Amino acid sequence: MTYCVGLLLNAGLVLLSDTRTNAGLDNISTYRKMFTFEEPGERVIVMMTAGNLSVTQTTIARLTEDINNADATHDTSIMKAENMLDVATMVGEMLSRVTAETKMRMDRMNQSASASMIVAGQRKGGRMRLFLIYPEGNFIEATDDTPYLQIGEHKYGKPILDRVISADTPLEDARKAVLLSMDSTLRSNLSVGMPLDMAVIEADALRITEQRRIEANDEQFAAMSAAWSQALRDAFTQIK
Amino acid sequence: MTYCVGLLLNAGLVLLSDTRTNAGLDNISTYRKMFTFEEPGERVIVMMTAGNLSVTQTTIARLTEDINNADATHDTSIMKAENMLDVATMVGEMLSRVTAETKMRMDRMNQSASASMIVAGQRKGGRMRLFLIYPEGNFIEATDDTPYLQIGEHKYGKPILDRVISADTPLEDARKAVLLSMDSTLRSNLSVGMPLDMAVIEADALRITEQRRIEANDEQFAAMSAAWSQALRDAFTQIK
Repeated sequence: MTYCVGLLLNAGLVLLSDTRTNAGLDNISTYRKMFTFEEPGERVIVMMTAGNLSVTQTTIARLTEDINNADATHDTSIMKAENMLDVATMVGEMLSRVTAETKMRMDRMNQSASASMIVAGQRKGGRMRLFLIYPEGNFIEATDDTPYLQIGEHKYGKPILDRVISADTPLEDARKAVLLSMDSTLRSNLSVGMPLDMAVIEADALRITEQRRIEANDEQFAAMSAAWSQALRDAFTQIK
Repeated sequence: MTYCVGLLLNAGLVLLSDTRTNAGLDNISTYRKMFTFEEPGERVIVMMTAGNLSVTQTTIARLTEDINNADATHDTSIMKAENMLDVATMVGEMLSRVTAETKMRMDRMNQSASASMIVAGQRKGGRMRLFLIYPEGNFIEATDDTPYLQIGEHKYGKPILDRVISADTPLEDARKAVLLSMDSTLRSNLSVGMPLDMAVIEADALRITEQRRIEANDEQFAAMSAAWSQALRDAFTQIK
């Protein structure tokens, strides 16, 4: 499993993913699920992936190949696409094609393979956008009413987002909210694991403003997690 | 869907269920999912059900019929069974039989039907016990390490239980914890709904110590829910 979450706020985009992949409980690995593409001042795109690793790796590899192709056009490269809607469409088409190819092979073995993605970014002249791409290639977009999207194991981390996130949440609170949302998920689902990858894209910066990997021994994250546990227990004690 | 939770504490058993059943989003009804059986001073049993309503209703109806049968013996009636382990075994066998019968009919229509149950109680001379019965009729039992069991939509309400419940939690805190666990679930899953049924069985009381229905307009529950929301937001603001 996986947990990835993206927030679309007036102040910017905040993205967080875990890195655990597993084929059964006895075959656990660490793979990056966050991929960044930027041409500073022109465009910035961050993608996060959940689901079958062969599908997501192939999708990202082909998108990257298309970017690096000398004959790339605005129809073939997400780094030349005219706007974020076209980026989401291109990613959706690639994901759908790779899923279909993999499915043919998997069906022969009576197995299934699917994956979903979050695509976030901004193109110069356009606004920031955040999309969730389904395995079939269709997608939905975050709005002011629902300014966040999740893929993977979304249930444990949803209540905190519902309670504290709105479009005008400042970036500092947003960082804290996605980390606490991840903390709840890490505690409850063994298939979601450290380290974490976080990216922040400030509004109209047109570049990744902040990107960091949070390792399993990160003291700041451990302190936040402990403080949140204590605060919840205190809150529980207080209420009648 | 459904959410039912049971706690096995040193001080007693605390049980809470919702009452919403649905066949699709446009066919929602209210059905009791908590069933109590007692012979005060001798034995007390509470059952909660999740899953296909025809399966759970038939299971409860047949168990009740067997109790009322003039020829009932300790092998056929849960009210004559020698101990709680035998009660769990009898309930499991009945659930498994009804599930199998229903499955035969459902398979013809390419549909599936399954249900699970929580069985809690105490028999004079025995200790309090809490079981989760699977659709196949096998079961697991709550222990000191994991003193709670859930059926139905368990994810949203699990974090609060993990943080505050241990075997020595007093009954007052336990009531609060299951209500907050339910509150988180009600907020996030439309297929779980008010009113709620709560039962408390104090240790060695051998009767239902407290039973109440919490209606949708219950002021105390609404106040607790609002206080918890506020406390969570305050806790979020406090931590760094």
